[in-house]
This record gives sequence, C-alpha cells and structure tokens, in this order.
Amino acid sequence: MLPDAVKTYLDTHREQHLAKLFELLRFPSIANDPGDPDQCQACAEWLVAHLQGLGFTAEVAPTAGRPAVLGELHVGDDRPTVLIYNHYDVQPPDPLELWDSGPFEPEIRDGRIYARGANDDKGQMFCQLAALEAHLRGGEGLGVNVKVLFEGEEEIGSPTLEPFLRANADRFAADAAVISDVEFFAQGHPSITYALRGLAYFEITLIGPDHDCHSGMHGGALANPTNAIARLVASMHDEAGRVTIPGFYDDVLPLTDAERQAWAQLPFDEAGYAAELGVEELAGGEAGLGILERRWARPTLDCNGIFGGYAGEGAKTIIPSRAGAKISCRLVAEQDPDKITEGMRQFLAANTPAGMRAELEVHAGARPVLVDTAQPAIQAAREALKESFEADVALVRAGASVPVTELFQRILGLDAVLMGFGLPNDNLHAPNEKFDLDQFHRGCHAAAAFLHNLATTV
Amino acid sequence: MLPDAVKTYLDTHREQHLAKLFELLRFPSIANDPGDPDQCQACAEWLVAHLQGLGFTAEVAPTAGRPAVLGELHVGDDRPTVLIYNHYDVQPPDPLELWDSGPFEPEIRDGRIYARGANDDKGQMFCQLAALEAHLRGGEGLGVNVKVLFEGEEEIGSPTLEPFLRANADRFAADAAVISDVEFFAQGHPSITYALRGLAYFEITLIGPDHDCHSGMHGGALANPTNAIARLVASMHDEAGRVTIPGFYDDVLPLTDAERQAWAQLPFDEAGYAAELGVEELAGGEAGLGILERRWARPTLDCNGIFGGYAGEGAKTIIPSRAGAKISCRLVAEQDPDKITEGMRQFLAANTPAGMRAELEVHAGARPVLVDTAQPAIQAAREALKESFEADVALVRAGASVPVTELFQRILGLDAVLMGFGLPNDNLHAPNEKFDLDQFHRGCHAAAAFLHNLATTV
Repeated sequence: MLPDAVKTYLDTHREQHLAKLFELLRFPSIANDPGDPDQCQACAEWLVAHLQGLGFTAEVAPTAGRPAVLGELHVGDDRPTVLIYNHYDVQPPDPLELWDSGPFEPEIRDGRIYARGANDDKGQMFCQLAALEAHLRGGEGLGVNVKVLFEGEEEIGSPTLEPFLRANADRFAADAAVISDVEFFAQGHPSITYALRGLAYFEITLIGPDHDCHSGMHGGALANPTNAIARLVASMHDEAGRVTIPGFYDDVLPLTDAERQAWAQLPFDEAGYAAELGVEELAGGEAGLGILERRWARPTLDCNGIFGGYAGEGAKTIIPSRAGAKISCRLVAEQDPDKITEGMRQFLAANTPAGMRAELEVHAGARPVLVDTAQPAIQAAREALKESFEADVALVRAGASVPVTELFQRILGLDAVLMGFGLPNDNLHAPNEKFDLDQFHRGCHAAAAFLHNLATTV
Repeated sequence: MLPDAVKTYLDTHREQHLAKLFELLRFPSIANDPGDPDQCQACAEWLVAHLQGLGFTAEVAPTAGRPAVLGELHVGDDRPTVLIYNHYDVQPPDPLELWDSGPFEPEIRDGRIYARGANDDKGQMFCQLAALEAHLRGGEGLGVNVKVLFEGEEEIGSPTLEPFLRANADRFAADAAVISDVEFFAQGHPSITYALRGLAYFEITLIGPDHDCHSGMHGGALANPTNAIARLVASMHDEAGRVTIPGFYDDVLPLTDAERQAWAQLPFDEAGYAAELGVEELAGGEAGLGILERRWARPTLDCNGIFGGYAGEGAKTIIPSRAGAKISCRLVAEQDPDKITEGMRQFLAANTPAGMRAELEVHAGARPVLVDTAQPAIQAAREALKESFEADVALVRAGASVPVTELFQRILGLDAVLMGFGLPNDNLHAPNEKFDLDQFHRGCHAAAAFLHNLATTV
C-alpha cells in the first residue's frame, strides 16, 4: 500500500501537476525531419531542470539524433535500482484542421486532457515525475535508486537508441525497468504487457521490360510485372491464411494453455472491435485461431503498400516496366528477423517469375520480446495497478513493437515492466489525442505505488 | 500497274510534296486537353484548302470535340467509291528534352523525316494526298469516287467519332475504305492488317477498414486490402496463363490452320523482339502457343496499374483502408466487351474477399475487328504494296485497337483495308518520331496504285 502521506501529496497537488504537465505539452517536440530541433532541445532542457528541481543529477545527453534526457538519484548502495523510460518526442499533429483545439495548446474538456502527447508519452511520463516528487516531497523519500531515460526519437523508430544504449550501458545498469508507453486492455481493465511482436520489413521490386510497353501490342507476349507482383504477394499465404515463407513458423513459441485460458477471461468485445475498424468480419490471419491469439501471439505477413503501372484517373493501357510491394512481417518469440529475411530471400529466389528479375530491400528489423512474468517487478506493478485502479490486473501481449523494450532486454539484460495508463481510443498519432484525467491521477498513484512496492520486493 | 505518267508525276514532285508535308507537320495539332484547339482548327483548315486545291469539295466539320475534315470528289455514278481515313491530330511531344530537333520543326536526317506526326499519322495521310494529286494532275484523273475523313481526335481515343459517324452515315457511304494508320510487319516486309483486338477496361477497388490501421496492432485480425487485391488479380489467371473470368474464351474464334501456317513464314525475330523490350524471356500469355498467336489472335488480361497503401520511401506499417487495380482485357473476334464485363462482375461477386467490399468501374470497351480478307479491296491493296515496295505482302493481325476500324464495320458496314507505310521503331508516341523517306515515297506510290487497282477491281 502506498503510504498515506504520499497519496495525500498527490491528491493535494493535482492542480500544480496539471499545470506542469501543460508546460511540457506546449513544446512541439517533433523528432521527424525537418521538424524544429530547437523545440526538442528546449523540451529536453525543461525536463532536466524539472529533474534537478526534484534533486536529481540530470543532463541533456547528445545522441546521433535528437538528444536524450538522463537523470539519476542515488539513495543507497543497498537499495535496488529502477530505470524509468519514457519519450518526450511526439507525433506530428497533421491533419491540423481535424483538431478541436490546438495540438500544443493543452486544454481540459469533459474530464480529459487534449493535446498532442497528452497520452503518448508526455502524460504517462508525468505520472512518473509526479510519483517521484510525491515520494521525495510528500513522503519519506525514495526507497529505490532511480535512473531516468527520456528518449527524443521514439516516434521516428528510435534510430539512434541502440548505439546510445551500447555506449552508455554501464550508466543504465539497474535491477528493474519500467516503460510507461502502453495502454489498458480496456477502460476499467488495467493490464501489464509482457510480450511485443517484432518486425521484418521488406520491399520487393519486380522488373520486366526496360520501359513501359503498349498492352495491346505486347499483351500476351510480355510477362507483366503488375500481374506478377500480385501473384507473388498472393503466394505468400496459403488458403488457410498461413505464411508460406520457408521456415516462417520454425521458431514460433506456441501459446501456452494458461495464456489462452487467461485471455478467454478478458472482456474482449469482438463485434465492437470490428465495428471500430469499420469491417463486418475479422478475416485476417490464420484460420481457426482466436482474434487475440492472432493479434498477439502469432506472426503475420501484411502488404503495407503495392504499386506499379498507372494509378491516375481513367484508363492507360500499359504493361509497366516494374512493380513493387512493401511487406512487413510481425514476429513473435522466438522468431529472428534475420532468419525471416533469409527465408524471404529463398522465397523470392524460388518464385521470381519468368521474364523478370527481382530485387529485395530490407527496411527494418526488430526482435520480438517476451519478458519474464515471474520477476518481482511484475508483481510490484500488478499490485500497484490493482491498488490504484481498484480492479484486477490482466497480463496481456501486444501486436505492435515498442523497440526500446527489446533493446533493454538485449543490451542491458533488463526485462522491462510495460505498465501504461492510457486507454484504447485515446487517439494516439491522430487528431484530438487525449488522456483521461482519472487515468492520469490514478496513473500518478500507480507509478508511486510501484516505486514503493519495488523498494520492498526487488 | 500504276500508269507511268502517275509514277513520273510522283517521282518529279518529291520536293514539292515534302515541302507541303512539312507545312502540315508544323501545326501542333494536339487534341488532348488543354492543348490549343486553335491549332487543330488551323490544321483542319489547311487540309480543307489543300483538298479544295485538288478539286475536292471539302469542309471543316464540327463534332462534339475537335473538328473533322470532310472531302469529296465525285467522278462518275458508275465508278466505285472509296473512303480514305487518316487523322491529323498528334500525340503531345513530351518529354521535350529528349528530342534531337523540335517536334514541330520537321527536318530530314539520315534519310528520315523527324517530327511529331511524321509517321502517325500526317506522313501516312500525305501519302494519300500525294496519290490523289498524282492521279488528278499527272495522270488521266481518278477512276474512283473519293470521300475523305480526316479525324482530329484519334490520339485521345476518338471519343466523339461514333455519334459523328452515326449522324453522317449517308455521307460516308462507300464501296471500300482505306485506313493508313498502321505499320509494316518489318522493314522490307509490307503487310495488310486484317484483325485488331478489342478492349474491356476495368477498375476494381477493394475496401476494408474505414481508415488505415496500424499493422502491428491489427495485423492478424484485419483482412488486408493490399494482400486481397494481390490475391484477386493473381486469381484472374490459372497456372497455364489462361484467364479465369467466367465465359472469357466462350466466343473466341480459333486461329485457322491457314493463318497459323502463314504466320510461321513471317520473318519474326523472337530474340530480337525480346531484346527490344529488354527482357530475357517472353513469358506472357497462354502456355504452349506461339508469340504471334498470343499477341494477335488470343485474348489477354493485363493489370495496367495496381495500388494501395504506402508507396513512398522507406517503411510505413499500415493496413490500408483500400486497394485497387486497373485491369484491361484485349479481345479477339467474336468476343463482346459487354459479355466480358458481365463475366468480370460475376468473377468479382464470387471472389470478393471476406471482410471487404468490392467496387467495379468500367472505363472503356471496344469490339475486336476481323475484316473479310476475300474482298477485292484487300487484293487491290496487296498488289499495290507488292508493286511499290517490290516485296511479298503479308496478311497480319495486330494486338492493339484502331477504334475507327470497328466503327466503320459496325456503323457503315465497311471492312476497311488497313494499309500503312510506317516501320516498327518509328518512335510513335515518343520523342524523335520519324518516317523513313523511302517508305514515304513508296507509300505515295502504293496509295496511288491502290486507287488505280480499285478502279479496275471493285
């Protein structure tokens, strides 16, 4: 249980914390090019000053891209150390015309904070900052050593984080890590995410004739790259929706019965989910498996873009010179993106159509993550969430990637606790991003309770 | 045999004819929007004046689009009447920077006339004009009544020609028609084209979720429109390259043994053709058939464009809301574009993927043409070409469409003689369009000989 003094501090400082969060939200700290690097720098400096005000040593740490913010507060060599990760960069706000209030002019409407980054990830970051403050000023101080890493390039795929972590691995040594950049399974259903899918992303180009040709004069003689890319992409799945890339499923860890049973208890509204996406049927993935298993525990292959020939108005009768597709595979533990890439190379070599040559470009790779749910930090988080949100806490997986999680595991040897306070439909990456005030306040409480629990259990 | 006087006239007026042709080539008579309608009007007026100078009654005839040029010279009620068709509009000259001389500043280099329209179709049109002039001024006058139709919208698909022909059908009544808007099978191998393929052009759209979705969060649950369009397009052919649209081959007239044997004698350089297109293998169309049969006598289905999702640089992980394809079928006698369209509707209804809806738009339709090769006008043309080019004349088909041919057949009841003087690789529709001087002069001779032969055989 969180000490009363800490809880009281949080309850009596709600206005002050909101005011500070609003300061943070006003920075248009967009990492995308061209953006305004000065705004990232200014936001990072604000965070450093804020951490220093709490008694941390802190600095704006240059990376190969946008700077990171590092902070540390050491309370005792006998205390466990926790590494807190959030990111201060935000998605671009476009399309601006769809916002009901300025994306960088935060305001509260109907019990929700509206701003770009209100949830992702400045709002969740501030839950951590408020929790630290409450322990330090309202309670008896921290029972754990704290290291802070606030990244500035998460929304552009953390392109420089890996070398930065490698170069500074000793500075991030810790006993536990918490990443608050995820969401609840559903309102009223707090959750901890213990697995994320990885990614292997390819671009395939098929090249036929060396110029676009008249489809009347040459149709029937020339193999057509647009037809061929269609056939190639189609052949990446069988009739049952299984991926046909050689070795694709070799290393997939099967879902355990315990997980399957636990997920069956989740309040998953399949019809509501379909309606939200605007489809009548959830017909993706492998036949015969449940929706959550297909989204969370099974690898997938999706074409993210297909192109070739004429895409304008009306008709043009050409056999185009080339056609292509962007293909991404979501991977689950223990799949290896390098092995999947090798499988894709084999597939392409075996299936390059006659009369054409093929090119393969690898755009990105990310390993899947499965964290140890038996570790004490998970238990500390679970109890903190239960106490703060007064509800049972589910252990869930997620279909997307949070690249830092895998980097923490691989480089720092840390299985992070993915504990977030957002709700589905908080409009992440979209106009009118929001964060529920109640989620924010309870999130501050949960972050504080997690630190408290950690001091006694790790 | 063309009378010596006519031949001599043509031989002694080469410079004058070239000078007149150059006047005609200087009009940038581009029918495409926005273009310059005044240039089409001016070019049409030049042609009317030229025909009047030869003794024709002639007029610029308004259509729903760019005007046509009509001319007539009646020599006797007992004489057969021939309808001569050409078009005075030309393709836009882009990309301008690839021309070695101005597209509308004709010049002669290496024995070739270079200009937009030098071949297609002003050069071939002028062969007809020179032939008429030679009979009228150099010989004993015309032995046939002549009607002239010079179209101004061929390069934009003759959008207003059908209603124009219907409204003026009686004015075009004739015993034979000649269309000089085609090419030789190969240099030294004059040919007459007796069949053209038709067209049925579709655009298919598959619509999944009502917005682009995150492929990590929803991959495996959502059916993906880009994967689905690939599967749909792929399923339009079977393993042997045959089209799977219901009823697709029902009305196809098989190639006769005589045709197959005749084509086997053609000097078709398969390796050279492949090299010209820049491919190692001619792998399109139906397995087991020859290249010429596949291009000329078999219907095909080609995807002319495929699109959906992200096509920019790098990676974007979305399941797009929609994807589409442009699909054209080349049709052969006796296929009916309306029946093919109905087959495509059935195919789409039967193959719309689960979790998606499909839309079908019909962009264009054109009937295939097969003309009667036993008619005397074909024999007249064959002898004219043989005499003028001193070579055997092949009867060939073509894979593309020349829409006016089908309109003449359907509306006027005329099986036109497709007799052209261009060579393959004259850069039609491309920079540095050209017309061989020798082809031009012999073409004038052949056009004159055709008129002469017609007077005695039809």
